[in-house]
Amino acid sequence: MSDIRVTVWNEFRHENENEFIGGIYPDGIHGAIAAGLREHGFTNVGTATLDEPEHGLTDEVLAQTDVLVWWGHKAHGDVQDAIVQKVQNRVLEGMGLIVLHSGHHSKIFRKLMGTSCSLRWREADEKERIWVVKPSHPIAQGLPPYFENDECEMYGELFDIPAPDDLVFISWFEGGNVFRSGCTFHRGNGKIFYFRPGHETYPLYHKPIIRQVIANAARWAAPAGGPAFPYTKGAINEREPLAPITPKDSKRARIG
Amino acid sequence: MSDIRVTVWNEFRHENENEFIGGIYPDGIHGAIAAGLREHGFTNVGTATLDEPEHGLTDEVLAQTDVLVWWGHKAHGDVQDAIVQKVQNRVLEGMGLIVLHSGHHSKIFRKLMGTSCSLRWREADEKERIWVVKPSHPIAQGLPPYFENDECEMYGELFDIPAPDDLVFISWFEGGNVFRSGCTFHRGNGKIFYFRPGHETYPLYHKPIIRQVIANAARWAAPAGGPAFPYTKGAINEREPLAPITPKDSKRARIG
Amino acid sequence: MSDIRVTVWNEFRHENENEFIGGIYPDGIHGAIAAGLREHGFTNVGTATLDEPEHGLTDEVLAQTDVLVWWGHKAHGDVQDAIVQKVQNRVLEGMGLIVLHSGHHSKIFRKLMGTSCSLRWREADEKERIWVVKPSHPIAQGLPPYFENDECEMYGELFDIPAPDDLVFISWFEGGNVFRSGCTFHRGNGKIFYFRPGHETYPLYHKPIIRQVIANAARWAAPAGGPAFPYTKGAINEREPLAPITPKDSKRARIG
Amino acid sequence: MSDIRVTVWNEFRHENENEFIGGIYPDGIHGAIAAGLREHGFTNVGTATLDEPEHGLTDEVLAQTDVLVWWGHKAHGDVQDAIVQKVQNRVLEGMGLIVLHSGHHSKIFRKLMGTSCSLRWREADEKERIWVVKPSHPIAQGLPPYFENDECEMYGELFDIPAPDDLVFISWFEGGNVFRSGCTFHRGNGKIFYFRPGHETYPLYHKPIIRQVIANAARWAAPAGGPAFPYTKGAINEREPLAPITPKDSKRARIG
Repeated sequence: MSDIRVTVWNEFRHENENEFIGGIYPDGIHGAIAAGLREHGFTNVGTATLDEPEHGLTDEVLAQTDVLVWWGHKAHGDVQDAIVQKVQNRVLEGMGLIVLHSGHHSKIFRKLMGTSCSLRWREADEKERIWVVKPSHPIAQGLPPYFENDECEMYGELFDIPAPDDLVFISWFEGGNVFRSGCTFHRGNGKIFYFRPGHETYPLYHKPIIRQVIANAARWAAPAGGPAFPYTKGAINEREPLAPITPKDSKRARIG
Repeated sequence: MSDIRVTVWNEFRHENENEFIGGIYPDGIHGAIAAGLREHGFTNVGTATLDEPEHGLTDEVLAQTDVLVWWGHKAHGDVQDAIVQKVQNRVLEGMGLIVLHSGHHSKIFRKLMGTSCSLRWREADEKERIWVVKPSHPIAQGLPPYFENDECEMYGELFDIPAPDDLVFISWFEGGNVFRSGCTFHRGNGKIFYFRPGHETYPLYHKPIIRQVIANAARWAAPAGGPAFPYTKGAINEREPLAPITPKDSKRARIG
Repeated sequence: MSDIRVTVWNEFRHENENEFIGGIYPDGIHGAIAAGLREHGFTNVGTATLDEPEHGLTDEVLAQTDVLVWWGHKAHGDVQDAIVQKVQNRVLEGMGLIVLHSGHHSKIFRKLMGTSCSLRWREADEKERIWVVKPSHPIAQGLPPYFENDECEMYGELFDIPAPDDLVFISWFEGGNVFRSGCTFHRGNGKIFYFRPGHETYPLYHKPIIRQVIANAARWAAPAGGPAFPYTKGAINEREPLAPITPKDSKRARIG
Repeated sequence: MSDIRVTVWNEFRHENENEFIGGIYPDGIHGAIAAGLREHGFTNVGTATLDEPEHGLTDEVLAQTDVLVWWGHKAHGDVQDAIVQKVQNRVLEGMGLIVLHSGHHSKIFRKLMGTSCSLRWREADEKERIWVVKPSHPIAQGLPPYFENDECEMYGELFDIPAPDDLVFISWFEGGNVFRSGCTFHRGNGKIFYFRPGHETYPLYHKPIIRQVIANAARWAAPAGGPAFPYTKGAINEREPLAPITPKDSKRARIG
């Protein structure tokens, strides 16, 4: 059991606009992801979606979220910059963030990475084989050496991200591409995990092993309880030194 | 000799507004840095400053710059967002970027890092000792195991940056602080170096060893000639696979 | 509470040979470290020492150890190579390893790092201030932004180690040095943490904050339950491909 | 042109014992690699082989080598431990090391990595596609986004190495595997590059793009001219502090 407070955020437009997709995810992609977390013992899972007021990410919701899961695809541009800024601030303060699949192009992921986060892609129902390349990482808990998705959208290198702090998974694709598909990053006091699988037209978030990875990631990304983020109000002028400073015969003007 | 095209950008306000600082840097901080690069054999060094049209960073200047050096302090907010965006784009395409001292809080550095880039600081004329902790790095060329600044402004941890790709220097400060003062990052096809020393009231950019480090960094940060940045126009839909894909009996709607 | 199985290994010679040191650590350095872990809820802590048969690290003990803590100093050379090899094998299989202070020069740490693990040192009762530079790391749990040791032996850069996977702590020393004093490494399926503080003539392993760090590290270093280490018997000839390979008109001799 | 002093080391047994292989590499694998370097302007390339006295790696040869290239396969066990130790020492002092293909299991690579360096493998004439995932790295100079080997031996994950400092290449294999096939490591003052392609039964070291990568790596791995490796004679007792230390009223025995 885990009382980590998870909020699953979903764009939630494909499911309403397309019958096929709505059939795959009758409770929305967020509903499927939340159900997966509950299966894994998470007792404190909420959801939020784009078309709610403030995208469902009010100050109160964000303040009470330990880990935010993010799924978006075709409406990244509709996410308000002010909300994105608040999410970034919360990550720097320590909130975990799990970015799924097409969330690679979301405003929040690009803002935290500082790169284009672009990639090659192809929709051709091809097979993916995901290899665990860092078996000691908590996100690999319970996994075999590799696992497969029989059909999926391809994402391929070059994936324009900063070098990840931990490279946990590399994907092989039937059509000839590879991809760094499980990547961790630390920004401020927050931990970030990018996980590739998932597209609105494939039922991957119902799949047990995908749910296992997301549950592992949520446990890993929860705040670790270290020293609080010190820069909520900016840089700190530490006037008093911690060790004595010999007075210098400085001709320097003191300007500030 | 090196024909790497370097543009040294400087805020260039302190020097005009304050007589003491103007006395230290009669040709501006950019003038001193450019002179240092020329001493080290760079034959292609230009400068640009905040109050020039487009901050001196026109499309033409940026397109002809291999490495951009950035010094700013009190007027970060006056740098136009549109110019910052252009600089970021050029870094992703491969332009090197050297961020000096108070440039840690510049819009461009924060945008590329995705964090607050905040820190502790103190102005107390204290001694700094900079230790080389990655002696194999090209930026350490010609350096001793450590070097010192007799008086300087202190920058201290926690420095809120992503873990650097290479940690080249760690500073010790008389007043009891430490700082990761030489850090490399890769973003897109571009190489970035953050170097701590330098404040408008200290003549550090006239100092030979500081000039050596900046020259080393400019050589290291110049484009390496690898594959071109592919995402100038966004993600790539690679419709044709590179290996044959077995047709699947997919019930999936093809939606895109 | 935690039932992680920890074995605390200690050279255990100083304490018997020197009255002053024996007075600081009447139950041995291993006894003090084990007591600290029990304070933090570890219910499964054993000890082993150099002069026991097989240094107390029999196959059975190693097989039942999740995390091994290592303290050695003046008798590194007396540790048998065959035992060191067994410990390395267990680390690759997933056992955590916490190397303390002068253990930096132990056979096992040098074998796992591949470098000299050498450093600068000085015994002058100087002050150390340890800064947390990765506050999101589990090993920083419960810590303030920095903490101090009033008197200690100095360890200084250059610390000849591979770049750590996570740099958690940097030390400032009164005498002018800095040190990467909390470093993580992953080798095989095992997690390794090097932690600087501690010398036989200082009572640091009785100190609450030092015990906190070691307890945090033991929780972090315990096996994560990912895919098993596959190479206990060497490389794997995976004769059957996972995807079909087009027959080539190869003139290549099949030799192996 | 480059006067970097490169020594290409080869086991040189397959070529003599097997007619097919001897036909591919009539001047030995070392001869082909050396020829490739000369094509790329290296004017100072020597070779050394296993069955020469001291394996051709005398103290004099090692002292005059900036970058050592290593190819071995079936006779790793015949390399003398004393020579391996000398090579490691030279790497720590700053000599570059390029380890090719089956050299992953050489004594020197395993000693420098501290892991098993094991992997999955298959000989089935399958296709390999090598993707550049760090285009800003000097080793990627002149390369396209990916390149291919039409037939090769497969090496697959899990590759049991420490996380590389830079991951430059990832390979896709026809048979369903992936591999981190271009990896950099820093050990001591030395730079190390592991490059996957090459097997005695394929003529890959005659191939222009493979030669390009090896030439790029040799330029990158050459000593950078930073501070000298300080620990040739062990740790340094820096008795004199660099900053004044307040005398403590210590009851500590001074033991050393």
